[in-house]
Amino acid sequence: MTQMPMMQKIDAFWRAANYLSVGQIYLLDNPLLAEPLRPEHIKPRLLGHWGTTPGLNFCFAHLNRVINERDQDMIYIAGPGHGGPAAVAHAWLEGTYSERYPDVSQDAEGMRRLFRQFSFPGGIPSHVAPETPGSIHEGGELGYSLAHAFGAAFDNPRLVVACIVGDGEAETGPLATSWHSNKLLDPYRDGVVLPILHLNGYKIANPTVLARIPEPELLKLMEGYGYRPHLVGPDHEEMAQTLDVVFDEIAAYKQGEERRLPMIVMRTPKGWTGPREVDGVPVEGTWRAHQVPLSAVRDNPAHLEMLQEWMLSYRPRELFDADGRPVAELTETVPEGPRRMSANPHANGGELLRPLALPDFREYAVEVKAPATVSSEPTRVLGGFLRDVIAANPHSFRLMGPDETASNRLQAVFETTDREWNAEVLPTDEHLAPGGRVMEVLSEHLCQGWLEGYLLTGRHGLFNCYEAFIHIIDAMFNQHAKWLESSRKIPWRRPVASLNYLLSSHVWRQDHNGFSHQDPGFLDVVVNKKAQVVRVYLPPDANTLLSVADHCLRSRDYVNVIVAGKQPVLDLFTMDEAVAHCTRGLGILPWASTDDDGEPDVVLACAGDVPTLETLAAAALLREHLPHLKVRVVNVVDLMRLQPSTEHPHGMSDAEFDTLFTTDKPIIFNFHGYPWLIHRLTYRRHGHDNLHVRGYKEEGTTTTPFDMAMLNDIDRYHLVIDVIDRVPGLGSNAAHLRQEMMDARLAARLHTRRTGEDAPEIRDWTWA
Amino acid sequence: MTQMPMMQKIDAFWRAANYLSVGQIYLLDNPLLAEPLRPEHIKPRLLGHWGTTPGLNFCFAHLNRVINERDQDMIYIAGPGHGGPAAVAHAWLEGTYSERYPDVSQDAEGMRRLFRQFSFPGGIPSHVAPETPGSIHEGGELGYSLAHAFGAAFDNPRLVVACIVGDGEAETGPLATSWHSNKLLDPYRDGVVLPILHLNGYKIANPTVLARIPEPELLKLMEGYGYRPHLVGPDHEEMAQTLDVVFDEIAAYKQGEERRLPMIVMRTPKGWTGPREVDGVPVEGTWRAHQVPLSAVRDNPAHLEMLQEWMLSYRPRELFDADGRPVAELTETVPEGPRRMSANPHANGGELLRPLALPDFREYAVEVKAPATVSSEPTRVLGGFLRDVIAANPHSFRLMGPDETASNRLQAVFETTDREWNAEVLPTDEHLAPGGRVMEVLSEHLCQGWLEGYLLTGRHGLFNCYEAFIHIIDAMFNQHAKWLESSRKIPWRRPVASLNYLLSSHVWRQDHNGFSHQDPGFLDVVVNKKAQVVRVYLPPDANTLLSVADHCLRSRDYVNVIVAGKQPVLDLFTMDEAVAHCTRGLGILPWASTDDDGEPDVVLACAGDVPTLETLAAAALLREHLPHLKVRVVNVVDLMRLQPSTEHPHGMSDAEFDTLFTTDKPIIFNFHGYPWLIHRLTYRRHGHDNLHVRGYKEEGTTTTPFDMAMLNDIDRYHLVIDVIDRVPGLGSNAAHLRQEMMDARLAARLHTRRTGEDAPEIRDWTWA
Repeated sequence: MTQMPMMQKIDAFWRAANYLSVGQIYLLDNPLLAEPLRPEHIKPRLLGHWGTTPGLNFCFAHLNRVINERDQDMIYIAGPGHGGPAAVAHAWLEGTYSERYPDVSQDAEGMRRLFRQFSFPGGIPSHVAPETPGSIHEGGELGYSLAHAFGAAFDNPRLVVACIVGDGEAETGPLATSWHSNKLLDPYRDGVVLPILHLNGYKIANPTVLARIPEPELLKLMEGYGYRPHLVGPDHEEMAQTLDVVFDEIAAYKQGEERRLPMIVMRTPKGWTGPREVDGVPVEGTWRAHQVPLSAVRDNPAHLEMLQEWMLSYRPRELFDADGRPVAELTETVPEGPRRMSANPHANGGELLRPLALPDFREYAVEVKAPATVSSEPTRVLGGFLRDVIAANPHSFRLMGPDETASNRLQAVFETTDREWNAEVLPTDEHLAPGGRVMEVLSEHLCQGWLEGYLLTGRHGLFNCYEAFIHIIDAMFNQHAKWLESSRKIPWRRPVASLNYLLSSHVWRQDHNGFSHQDPGFLDVVVNKKAQVVRVYLPPDANTLLSVADHCLRSRDYVNVIVAGKQPVLDLFTMDEAVAHCTRGLGILPWASTDDDGEPDVVLACAGDVPTLETLAAAALLREHLPHLKVRVVNVVDLMRLQPSTEHPHGMSDAEFDTLFTTDKPIIFNFHGYPWLIHRLTYRRHGHDNLHVRGYKEEGTTTTPFDMAMLNDIDRYHLVIDVIDRVPGLGSNAAHLRQEMMDARLAARLHTRRTGEDAPEIRDWTWA
Repeated sequence: MTQMPMMQKIDAFWRAANYLSVGQIYLLDNPLLAEPLRPEHIKPRLLGHWGTTPGLNFCFAHLNRVINERDQDMIYIAGPGHGGPAAVAHAWLEGTYSERYPDVSQDAEGMRRLFRQFSFPGGIPSHVAPETPGSIHEGGELGYSLAHAFGAAFDNPRLVVACIVGDGEAETGPLATSWHSNKLLDPYRDGVVLPILHLNGYKIANPTVLARIPEPELLKLMEGYGYRPHLVGPDHEEMAQTLDVVFDEIAAYKQGEERRLPMIVMRTPKGWTGPREVDGVPVEGTWRAHQVPLSAVRDNPAHLEMLQEWMLSYRPRELFDADGRPVAELTETVPEGPRRMSANPHANGGELLRPLALPDFREYAVEVKAPATVSSEPTRVLGGFLRDVIAANPHSFRLMGPDETASNRLQAVFETTDREWNAEVLPTDEHLAPGGRVMEVLSEHLCQGWLEGYLLTGRHGLFNCYEAFIHIIDAMFNQHAKWLESSRKIPWRRPVASLNYLLSSHVWRQDHNGFSHQDPGFLDVVVNKKAQVVRVYLPPDANTLLSVADHCLRSRDYVNVIVAGKQPVLDLFTMDEAVAHCTRGLGILPWASTDDDGEPDVVLACAGDVPTLETLAAAALLREHLPHLKVRVVNVVDLMRLQPSTEHPHGMSDAEFDTLFTTDKPIIFNFHGYPWLIHRLTYRRHGHDNLHVRGYKEEGTTTTPFDMAMLNDIDRYHLVIDVIDRVPGLGSNAAHLRQEMMDARLAARLHTRRTGEDAPEIRDWTWA
């Protein structure tokens, strides 16, 4: 070891990281400033965020000392992930970057490439991204760092997740509630999150709220969130001493001697160590340091001169040898192998991923002697399977939900586990304990953020949610899907478990909660993302739900959306049939069809449990009243099968589609969601002009289930009318039946208005 | 006045509201319990949320005293809006309900109807809804009450907004950050928000976080948020005394004598005054009281008996006379006319709405001597107009944005106003002051929630946002759109100003921020909502943006989405042409077309500024290289024009569509967003099979603008290739041109990889 005192080594690492960060933002060439800077060394477009970067570098340098001294397993989440240059600099200094990207070697030529590629066409993104070694956190949309951090800490009892929270990000709602994650953290079974609130005072153009409230108020806020706050200024000694105290407190917390986690409030100037003043206005310590402090470097010799001075202020000759390699004083501070935060396997969770131990889902099957004659509650059946998944994977599977696990009828899981809870418990509480596998808090953002962090560090899970309110995390879904889309192109990013959604309490059975609870539009958001990463399943009964769930839990690198009701629906498939049906993704229900395997007169297609039920009831009415009409009933489980095979890996060929749906017969498609989605998936199909889709058309209120169906014309009677209106030559019987159907709708409406309920013959209808 | 002491009158009002709440949940008939309850008096489906209701009633009763004693202008926001029976009970007791709905009179028959209609088919929703007098806050999705409350308080200096925050709701991210709204409240120009955190301890099936942390921690949290907390238990005297203190503190705050707003932490049992125990398990004070405490009333005589006892425990004979009218002791506590919270005009904002004083947008026009020869930054031009809108409407227009007003180049507004800020200000700050019309905080949830509250209380505004991150408020948009959809059916709900979005920093110009910032999918979410309330505009240049913005600011009861870039784009229209074009919503650009008003060989359609630019460049290439090809260029500003007139009020007839787009010629549509949206809007059009849409297909990274276009095949060269591939019989010239275009794409790619920039001939292309 060299003799330089530790504080100086930390300072050297910090200066080196700052130098490399500035270089990434500005330089195309001349990385070591071997010659005076000339305009042609400068990038033509200056992109990147300097303001947060020196603070990120400062924390990283100091945390490395702790890792070395305590042999601490630690990962680093950069909430202000716009500071991409920082994370890239760390990985390069630690050697990880060159291991992941051998062409960016740890020498002068590598440094040149490192600089040039940043925010450059064909290079790397300007923010922390999947491409960045050591990161599980995209630095784009803000607000999710702390939730990701807690997700990473769950079930990793020896891990510390250092989470830098930007003071801009801290203004977001998701971040503001993420602080409360400590109430669902178990000191013994889980790891620790160390939040470092980075108060550099400014957003893009504004001060931040938390930087401008009185300091005692800020400390109370952190104490109110349940933490022990420690204030740190821009000083090495202070940071080091504070970290020593903080990690002692963490040890005490792990021992049960201290109830509260520590956290750090770190106040540093924005753009710290950058230009103090540019063109006569202050820059360091103001919002003007947010992005690129010197903006005219290529054209303005004074700016060029300032850039050179700025970079030289880090004394690069002391940091890199003549070949551009970091000097020994620097590399000595770098932890060993996987202890490096840029190389910690938790931050490339696929490296740690083990398949779930899955019980045989077939054993949870409901018995189906004849199709559509008895009912089950699909999610209740699934609950039994999930119970045993949890039991078999006590440290690697979590079930997330915003207080809706029981409401969504998954309560069998409580036979084997509890809700995670690390706050007060009263005698009247049920299933509330540390170590619980069920994570319930009334925040879809937290459920989503925790699960993302948990998955990206190599574990498994399922998020169950009311269908309408999953829109709350649309933006988070988008970002996670983009993460997966990018990760798939990065060879060293190993596949992680899929993000699985179970959307229950869906639009058709929110008749009691009313209009605000009725929105099936998440599917439209999902299918905008790359076909490679999105899957949508609408199992129509309990056995198909089991089969789909098993499939999703085994999959990797997808977002799987399962829509399934909690209310009783008719059982359609034996388990063997269910597996076959789900494997095909869609298929004819022969027992409900009257086309005798020949050419039908009309195709009744359906996707979703309630639409399927109404379609079957319509098929029964047609069979009874128009016995000569050849009806084919097709159920779709795997929605993406409808797309052309050129558009989605699950897509059907046109030949398959034509065989199932015909090219010239009317298709009445009864769909769970907004009807346009089906058109969007099928507009290139030959039969598309014959396709008439029913679905949710934004009609609803507090009423009965069948009235909800009628309000949106997805009910059995209207489907019969649709058939009559679209199949030519049905004659006077059909005209008569049409009137009967109109009368039946009116009678049903009047019945519910009179009694408040659906008529028993509708509610209890079966195929038998 | 009757002689009953005030506390007893408040208690009587509370008991009456509780009685009416229970009646709504359970009874079909026998509202006054004139005879013993029988099963046929009971609703067959018991729907509603009892748990939060008595607390809501308690607050309302006590606040009425304050209104009377201080002649206080006050509205009431029920965060736990699932407690719909409470709000309905208040309005009925205050007489407002019968004024709004004369068939629900304030007598026994009216009470019977009041009970029966609740959560009953053909009746009213189970939650607080637009149908509920006195509410601006839907009780469905949780988390937005406090943001709505602040929005209502802005620019209403004499108003107090009492906001009951449920402890479940308090766990959501949006609510957690809403507390910080006090930093953007001006004590002099704005009203006051009185948050009442209702700790009843439970969500659906779980305790709440804030009810289970140590009380000192909770108080610190509220102090950390910048409030003076006051604890209240379930006691009339305590509540009354606390409210006296609190309203004195509010007066001191308004006088500038006190920096902090007061707030109340009210701890009451969940389901307070309901059944203590049912079937041997505790109910009152537990999560079991969340919805319907007695669930088997119709079938189980013991439950029926308990219900009767429960209702009689409120001593209805003392509260209602033999005709069902509230007794004098009750009605005396009700404030006068518009002082009633159920009738306060702020809660039916259309009553107070005044049109904006709008400067003539034509005066902000950029001069256009020839189309597509010079460039403007559209949002910068709009900024000048908005500046003068703000100046002309100093108390009724606000501009919301998450720290992006300057980034979106609207900074001209700072010539006349500031950013609202009521925390510390430093000498280096700019445009930061109390009374500012610009609301900036890094929370899209707050921007949206504040604006909703501001609009629903009769004012105007615009939310400017990065396009990708508007998804953060997808769910809030959904709820607001549903509010508008419902409100339009309610005669007494007067129209309010539209919710206007300006989405800038859009997908095509987030080349510098990378993949995470590239998502045009909000439009897909928007068009799922009812055609009556949604409008989408994609003005291609500065003058069309001005025209569209003026139109949107004048409109009522819509959600208007405007997508417009901040980067320079070519000016296409003189102001007169822009007005005509925007009025039509779409139209042919004759100067860019070569069809000479005859039948074209191909239609190049476009929507959005960057796609329009690329389309024009493609048209120029075709004109040069294939001079005999008849090209028609159609630009779409008003996206909903594409839908059939049967689907959307702006929709074109098929005849119009066919005339513009032809029925048999290839249409190459270059679209701003995901391409499927155009298919979805046009799949029933005659020419649909000839329609080929280019748009964002989820390809992107940090690169140049033109590379972004090429990655997604919306670039000029690819459009020419598309034309060549789809117009038959173009011959060898075309084949040659196709190869040239391929080469041009490759050359462009190589140029950006080499230089980091787009080639000048691409970047600076003009029509001239």
